[in-house]
Amino acid sequence: MKWCRVQAERGPAFGIVEGDEIALVSGPPFEPHARTGERIGLAAARFLPPVAPMNFYAAGINYRAHIDWANQHHGMTLKVPAQADIGYRSPNALVGSGADIVIPNDAPGPVEYEGELVAVIGKKAKHVRAEDALDVVAGYTLGNDLSERSFQKTDRTLWRAKNIDTFKPMGPVVVTGIDPMAQTIAVRINGKSVSEYSTANMIFSLAHHIARMTRYLTLYPGDVIWMGCDGPTVPALQPGDLVEVVNDAIGVLANRVTREAG
Amino acid sequence: MKWCRVQAERGPAFGIVEGDEIALVSGPPFEPHARTGERIGLAAARFLPPVAPMNFYAAGINYRAHIDWANQHHGMTLKVPAQADIGYRSPNALVGSGADIVIPNDAPGPVEYEGELVAVIGKKAKHVRAEDALDVVAGYTLGNDLSERSFQKTDRTLWRAKNIDTFKPMGPVVVTGIDPMAQTIAVRINGKSVSEYSTANMIFSLAHHIARMTRYLTLYPGDVIWMGCDGPTVPALQPGDLVEVVNDAIGVLANRVTREAG
Repeated sequence: MKWCRVQAERGPAFGIVEGDEIALVSGPPFEPHARTGERIGLAAARFLPPVAPMNFYAAGINYRAHIDWANQHHGMTLKVPAQADIGYRSPNALVGSGADIVIPNDAPGPVEYEGELVAVIGKKAKHVRAEDALDVVAGYTLGNDLSERSFQKTDRTLWRAKNIDTFKPMGPVVVTGIDPMAQTIAVRINGKSVSEYSTANMIFSLAHHIARMTRYLTLYPGDVIWMGCDGPTVPALQPGDLVEVVNDAIGVLANRVTREAG
Repeated sequence: MKWCRVQAERGPAFGIVEGDEIALVSGPPFEPHARTGERIGLAAARFLPPVAPMNFYAAGINYRAHIDWANQHHGMTLKVPAQADIGYRSPNALVGSGADIVIPNDAPGPVEYEGELVAVIGKKAKHVRAEDALDVVAGYTLGNDLSERSFQKTDRTLWRAKNIDTFKPMGPVVVTGIDPMAQTIAVRINGKSVSEYSTANMIFSLAHHIARMTRYLTLYPGDVIWMGCDGPTVPALQPGDLVEVVNDAIGVLANRVTREAG
C-alpha cells in the first residue's frame, strides 16, 4: 500500500494511492480510518509531509562512507559512532514533495542535500526487542536532510544548519512492505544523478535503533526516524535547482530551491 | 489568568483555574474556545503538560553562574555563548505536575534537576521584532530539565541525558501577564530549598531569542521555549525524592522520583 497526506479543500487529509488517484480517508492509515468518498488526481495533488510527527528523530551519522567524505570535504572530525545515539530535528522545518526550499537571505551557504530513508512509526512502543522492532513501523518514506554548512560551523546547535523552515522535505508517500535494509537511495539535481547508495550499509540498523531507543523512550504513532545518508552531499544547491530524492518503491521527493527575498 | 491541561473523564482537556476549581474549556485558551460546563476540583486534578508542543525548544546554556558551576562541578568546558543558538528537547519526555520521574534501571547517574521558566507560544509568528516578541507568548509555565550526567558524557547526542521518558516535567499551569525577565525560580528537594535565581540574569532575553529564532523558523501556537537555569543543580536526585520547581506567580511543579523496576 502507498498512502500520503495532501492539502484537500477542507484542509490536510490522508489518502490512499490507487492508480493515478488518491482516495481520501478519515485518518492516518496506521489508525482506524474510513474512506470519505472523495478522490483527487495524483498529478494535481499538493503533497504535505505524510505525517505531522510528535517526535522527529534523526540517526545523523550512520554510514561510513559519509563520515570519510564529510571529514575530507568539510574538514569535519566525525568519528564512526561506538553506539547508536539518536539525534533530533524539529517539525517546523518539514514540507512535502513539491514545496519550495527557501534559503534565508543571510545564509552564506553552501546548502547541501542528504537523501535519506525515513521510518514512520505506526504503534505506541516501549521496550521493543530488535527482532520485533520492524513490527512497530507503519511504512517508509523519503527525507532530504538539508544542511547549511556555514551555520553548522558557527552555531552551538544545529538549529540553523538543519532546522530552518522548509529544510526538511519529506515524502511524497509512505509505502508498506519494503525491506528498510535493502533500499537504493539516489539524489538528482536538475535530473542529473549526484548520489546513490544502499541502506544495506547502515552502521546501526533501523531495528537496532528502535530496540535501543525504546529502552529509554516511548515511540508514538506518527513519529519519524530519519536514517542518515551515505557518501557525498555535493554539489551545493543553488536557487532554481530541482533536488530529488529517489527510491524505486517510494517514488520521488522533489523540491525546487529558492532564495528568500531580501 | 491561569490555565492548565488535565486528564478528564473523556480524555485530556484544557481548563481555566478559578479559585479552587478548574472550569473545563473546549480548546487551548490561546485559541477560540468555550466553556464545557464541567468543573473539577483543583486538589484532585491530574495535571498533564499544559500543552502538547509541535516544537520543543530549549535555550540550554543561558546563565553565567550556571556555566561557571557546571565547568567546576562537572568538569565541563562550557563557554559563555557568543550568540543565542536555540536547542531542542523531545515531547516524548514531557509529563505534568504530580507525575513520577522514572530513572531507567541502567542509568549510572547522577540525575540532576534544572528548574526553568518556560514560554508558551500563542500565535503563529515569523520575522518578529524583539520589541514585539512578547506579544506572541500566550503565557508562562515551569519546566524541570532533568539531566542524566553519565549519559551526557558518554553519548554523542543528548537523547539519554535529557530526553528519557518523564525527564521533562512541565507545569502545573500557564499564567498570563507576568514579566519573564523578573521572575524568581527556586527548586526544593523534599521541602528544602537547593537553588534560587532570578530570570533577570539571562544572557540572552526571551525577546531576543524569539526575534532571532523567527528570522529562520516559524513559531506555532503551543510551541514551548525553555529558558535555561542558573546556578548549581545538586544534590543529585534519589528515588523517593520529591523535587519541586517554584515560582510565586505560576505555582509549584512537583514530581516524585522513582527508579524503573528491573
